Amino acid sequence: MATGPGRSGPILGAGSVLRLIRDGDAVTRAAIARRTGLARSTVAQRVDALLAHQLVYEAGDEASTGGRPATVLAFNHRAGVVLVADLGATHSRLALSDLSGQPLAEVAFDMEIADGPEAVLGSICEHFEALLERAGRHGGEVRGIGVGVPGPVDFPAGRPVNPPIMPGWDGFSIPGWFASRYDAPVLVDNDVNIMALGEHWSHWRELDHLLYVKVGTGIGSGIVSGRTIHRGADGAAGDIGHIRVSDHDDAVCRCGNLGCLEAVAGGRALALALSADGIDASGSREVVELVRAGRPEAILKVREAGRVLGDVLAGCVNFFNPGAIVVGGDIAEAQHHLLAGIREVVFQRSLPLATRDLTIANSRLGDRAGVIGAAIMVIDHVLAPEAVDRALQLSSVA
Amino acid sequence: MATGPGRSGPILGAGSVLRLIRDGDAVTRAAIARRTGLARSTVAQRVDALLAHQLVYEAGDEASTGGRPATVLAFNHRAGVVLVADLGATHSRLALSDLSGQPLAEVAFDMEIADGPEAVLGSICEHFEALLERAGRHGGEVRGIGVGVPGPVDFPAGRPVNPPIMPGWDGFSIPGWFASRYDAPVLVDNDVNIMALGEHWSHWRELDHLLYVKVGTGIGSGIVSGRTIHRGADGAAGDIGHIRVSDHDDAVCRCGNLGCLEAVAGGRALALALSADGIDASGSREVVELVRAGRPEAILKVREAGRVLGDVLAGCVNFFNPGAIVVGGDIAEAQHHLLAGIREVVFQRSLPLATRDLTIANSRLGDRAGVIGAAIMVIDHVLAPEAVDRALQLSSVA
Repeated sequence: MATGPGRSGPILGAGSVLRLIRDGDAVTRAAIARRTGLARSTVAQRVDALLAHQLVYEAGDEASTGGRPATVLAFNHRAGVVLVADLGATHSRLALSDLSGQPLAEVAFDMEIADGPEAVLGSICEHFEALLERAGRHGGEVRGIGVGVPGPVDFPAGRPVNPPIMPGWDGFSIPGWFASRYDAPVLVDNDVNIMALGEHWSHWRELDHLLYVKVGTGIGSGIVSGRTIHRGADGAAGDIGHIRVSDHDDAVCRCGNLGCLEAVAGGRALALALSADGIDASGSREVVELVRAGRPEAILKVREAGRVLGDVLAGCVNFFNPGAIVVGGDIAEAQHHLLAGIREVVFQRSLPLATRDLTIANSRLGDRAGVIGAAIMVIDHVLAPEAVDRALQLSSVA
Repeated sequence: MATGPGRSGPILGAGSVLRLIRDGDAVTRAAIARRTGLARSTVAQRVDALLAHQLVYEAGDEASTGGRPATVLAFNHRAGVVLVADLGATHSRLALSDLSGQPLAEVAFDMEIADGPEAVLGSICEHFEALLERAGRHGGEVRGIGVGVPGPVDFPAGRPVNPPIMPGWDGFSIPGWFASRYDAPVLVDNDVNIMALGEHWSHWRELDHLLYVKVGTGIGSGIVSGRTIHRGADGAAGDIGHIRVSDHDDAVCRCGNLGCLEAVAGGRALALALSADGIDASGSREVVELVRAGRPEAILKVREAGRVLGDVLAGCVNFFNPGAIVVGGDIAEAQHHLLAGIREVVFQRSLPLATRDLTIANSRLGDRAGVIGAAIMVIDHVLAPEAVDRALQLSSVA
């Protein structure tokens, strides 16, 4: 906890001054001095360093109230770019964004994560280069890289941990792989975590606590607690797909347990159940198509899946008391049948106090939640005060 | 989020300097200047203000490495006291502690929370006065007051919200009641939250995430997420007692639902079940006595309650991935039967990654967790940098 002066710069280095400017808390040199308690001369030094590195620019003069008008400083969100990839089991989406989180270029394509890290990351890198070229930027401008993967991640190390649907990735260092290609930090997280962050940042910023639930082939969730991702002690938080549900002890789950939520209400389970009824469905996409085509058997199954999911989420609401539950993934996009089932049970089963102001809504970002969240995660990391201080120090030594 | 200079002091006011000294991050004037980036003269002013208010003292000279030795500054934990009360349904514990969280005097006594706020708080106040007298301190030294209550709380307002076992307390302003008696902030929280904080601070400080579960007459939990209490959007977080458990739809809960955890595995439910078997038990205390006396019927029921609780906690572990689960309350203290049942199911049902480093242990603070946690909560509040800056400013105006 204690961070000695040997290991980091001063608390109010240039990085903290940048944060004040970026958040709009203090945007003139005089206001920064008042707000921080730093001497005017120290503030001038910090601002000069930020100007020299083009992290801020002088945006004009403040509306004068008499006396010499002060120069307004603004964050330069064009001072670099971030590259992000949201890797799914069979599909990936990549984006290049500026430092405000605004996407400059995006691409989505089919790709098998089971092909292993070398093949997949090689392909990702080629697409990254193409995105840079399309946007007229180059590799030297890349400030950070973010990768979301469909499995548990040791977040500090950037390594997948026993990911069930990612053969060959267990313990693989994704930052290590990128190290020789880009001179920028690489953050790796579970895909549902970055989706939760993307939804929160885009549409629910006024809430402190949010739960994002993805219902596709499997079921997972990402938790925003106190406006940050709650990853848990082992990076395993949010794995609601393997919570046991009532009255389904006959459902065998791929994890080896019986009666897991995912084995009852996931897209794969729904497809299996429809097939058992003689209706052809090999996966969650077919289930969605059947629902869209108005097949009552499929609608019934999705609605019932919503109720089973609602039973688990009612417990999560009692436990965690989020301000909103946002539901995404293939099956959620099958009109509003899943949502209806969830709402029905959550509002019946959860405590009145915990559902007083609770919103349960479908995702608004859809497929793009992951890349948006990954960009925000990386930007927050590279613009954290200590990171900025370190970057400025390194470049002044060089 | 943005806090303008009009509404608060500078980021690095005396309060932030106090935090550096208190945490041991920087304990000489020179080290504070280096660590913060403040001018030496500004640091000297801040330290002078803290010395004048006796929040710090000069503790001697640093071991010299040549040159004039620097004076070491230390936090004066005797600079005030806090008063705390942990109110249960029928029993209360009160404490007076110094600003390090060290108890100076404690008292516990029987008291009916159902007597309503005026009667209960009147009695609490008399005991507070007696504690001050016993420790040779006076009301003017009280820096803050903390109260834990057995029900949901609107934390920012300090008001209980629809508390089921606290007739007359709904919406009652506990801080308002104290305002005419002590010139100090009053924080009110759910009892299980302060117990979670007490356990975390005393024995689990190395963990970021902890779950404290209390199994007494009812069942509740307190959540420590990222080293702070997670209260949720409505102050309702942690209410696991009303999560639905499998195969018990015949159990009617006092909340009006069927099959709630508390209606199956709480102390009251266990006493009812034993009575139905012809064994005399009117509440959780009798259940504990029967277990201590070695009655196999009671041991069996507590062990089975542990398994049912384990099923719910397995879900909480998948969802929240805590580093430890600490179990307290009457029933937990009935030897290790409850704990054994919990462990059995959690380690069978939760995902391997989430239980890899999970500890499940009995409370070590027992009855005292609440007052210790309440003291820590109040001290953190009154010594927060902004609070210290405000206090110093007010007293210099007066």
